[in-house]
This record gives sequence, structure tokens and C-alpha cells, in this order.
Amino acid sequence: MKLGEGVEAAIHCVSTLASVDGNSTMPGAALAECFGLSPSYLLKHLNQLTAARILESVSGPAGGYRLARPAEHITLLDIVLAVEGREPAFRCGEIRRNGPVKIDASAYVKPCGINAAMLKAERAYRAALAEVKISDVVADYAAEGDPRSYAASCAFVARHQRPQKAASRKQI
Amino acid sequence: MKLGEGVEAAIHCVSTLASVDGNSTMPGAALAECFGLSPSYLLKHLNQLTAARILESVSGPAGGYRLARPAEHITLLDIVLAVEGREPAFRCGEIRRNGPVKIDASAYVKPCGINAAMLKAERAYRAALAEVKISDVVADYAAEGDPRSYAASCAFVARHQRPQKAASRKQI
Repeated sequence: MKLGEGVEAAIHCVSTLASVDGNSTMPGAALAECFGLSPSYLLKHLNQLTAARILESVSGPAGGYRLARPAEHITLLDIVLAVEGREPAFRCGEIRRNGPVKIDASAYVKPCGINAAMLKAERAYRAALAEVKISDVVADYAAEGDPRSYAASCAFVARHQRPQKAASRKQI
Repeated sequence: MKLGEGVEAAIHCVSTLASVDGNSTMPGAALAECFGLSPSYLLKHLNQLTAARILESVSGPAGGYRLARPAEHITLLDIVLAVEGREPAFRCGEIRRNGPVKIDASAYVKPCGINAAMLKAERAYRAALAEVKISDVVADYAAEGDPRSYAASCAFVARHQRPQKAASRKQI
């Protein structure tokens, strides 16, 4: 089982955007710089997060990305599904039907027990991911992370966030 | 998140081999036929299962594959790890260290909280897979599967299994 590398980048970016002041944005290039990633590589994942309404993209001179909803309402599962897609990890090709003995389709109305067991395990995985909110990730980092690293992250955000004019919608 | 297609084939093959009589074997070509798969495609996965000591390969005229241990001692997790590898699905590239602010390596001794949370969810997934024994899968199929499909599977196994000489090790 493999998750794409983009999942790590996406979770770090959403966590970083959870730390901007109010409705400020942060440019994609700054997020890429923050994690030593190529801006074009990161753009794909920022687009996925925007399409999933985890982020919103603001255009114009003070444009960039910000959370589309409060960090308390974004979970690791939301981000994993946005980047990896919503399909189950286990791909049932219904190979049980491919054997040499042809049986009427009515024999396969009930889902294959193997598929059912694999999907049950995936539900446990998704439930565990859904338990972790981005607000928890950020709070844990503040409480448990190395203070130098945390201070550097906060300083980076303070330096690169772009405050919005008063008229701009405040999302949190 | 994606699991390779081989996982489905591998679980079906192990479940099928759990139904042979005693220490009989079944040729790889018969297993491939049973699920409409290419023998060369399936061979890769049978080799993975053999390397993981889930199956054993017997050579000679009555050769083929059989379980290397009782079906009660083989779980879905064993099979998934044999086919997909034992590495975590979440790949932490430690991108937290790549930012423009260089901090001493001592700041990263503690694992990244994001990695820790992702691995915790994977442990839940693996625990759920480890709860399902192949003996359960076979028993559920006998009890809950379509009787025509079950009868056809049993007949296929009976037709293709290869009894061993008395001297051959009995594995169950």
C-alpha cells in the first residue's frame, strides 16, 4: 500500500496555513519554499486541496491560499482523500467471476467476502485519520515540537502571510 | 492510497489453497485458470507469497503450491505485506527539514507529529487486517457464499489438486 508523496506536502501546507493571522493568505511559492519543494510540483496538490474546498485560492496582489474552513473542521482524512482520491485502496476486480466455470450473474449479487473484509479494514484506517484534526496537529506542534523549529515556522508564516483588505471575506 | 491489483489475486489464491486435501498441491497454472489470470502475471505474486513463507512450492511431477502453515495462522495482513512490502503507506520525506531556515539536526530528533499521526492510523488498518484469518474467509465463503459458486470452487480444487506421496511433509 502506498500513499503518494504529495500527502506529506499537503498536510504540512494545510497545517502551515492554519497559522496565518485571520483571513490572510500565503502564496504558493512561499509554501513551496517553506518545505524546499518545487512550486510547480506543489501547485498540483494545492489545486487538489482547493478543489476539495479545504483551501481557497485568492487572486490579486495580496493573493495566495488560505483555509476554506476552520482547522477544527479539517481532518487528515479530508486531506488524504483530496490528494489520493476517494476510491478504496483495495481494488476488487471481481476475479471470482473469471474462472472456467461460468455461473449465472445471480451467483455474485452478494459482495465477495474478501472485498468486504478489505473494505472493513479500510474503514478502520479512515476512521483513525478522521479523528485527527489539523487544529490538533498544530496544537501538538506548538506543545511538543522543538521550540526552535516551531519559532522558525511561526516567523516564516509572519514574514510571508498577506493580510487582506477589510472587505475580504474572513473565513474563520 | 492504492493497493496493487495483485492483492486480490493473492488472497483468492491463498484461500483456494486452504481448501486442498491434506498436503496436496495445486499448480500455478490451475490457480491462474481459476481466476482467469495470466500464469506469468500470477507467478510474481505466488513467488512473493512463497518468499513470505505463506505458501510453499513443491517441485516434481506432483508439484505446485500449498499453504506453508495452517490457514488459521495466515491473516489478510500477512498477505498484504507479502505482496505490497512492509514499508508504511505514508512516506515521510522529512520535508519539515527542507525549509529556508536551517536549524541544527537536534531540532528533529523527535519524530514529526504528522508522520506519527499517519502511522498511528496505519496501525489501525493493519490491526483490522490482522484480525481476519484465511480460515475465516474460507468458512464465510462456505456459509455465506452462493452455493453454486462455492460448489464450483470446490469441484475445481478437487479436479486440480495433486495428492502427494506419503513421504511428503504434511504441512497442516
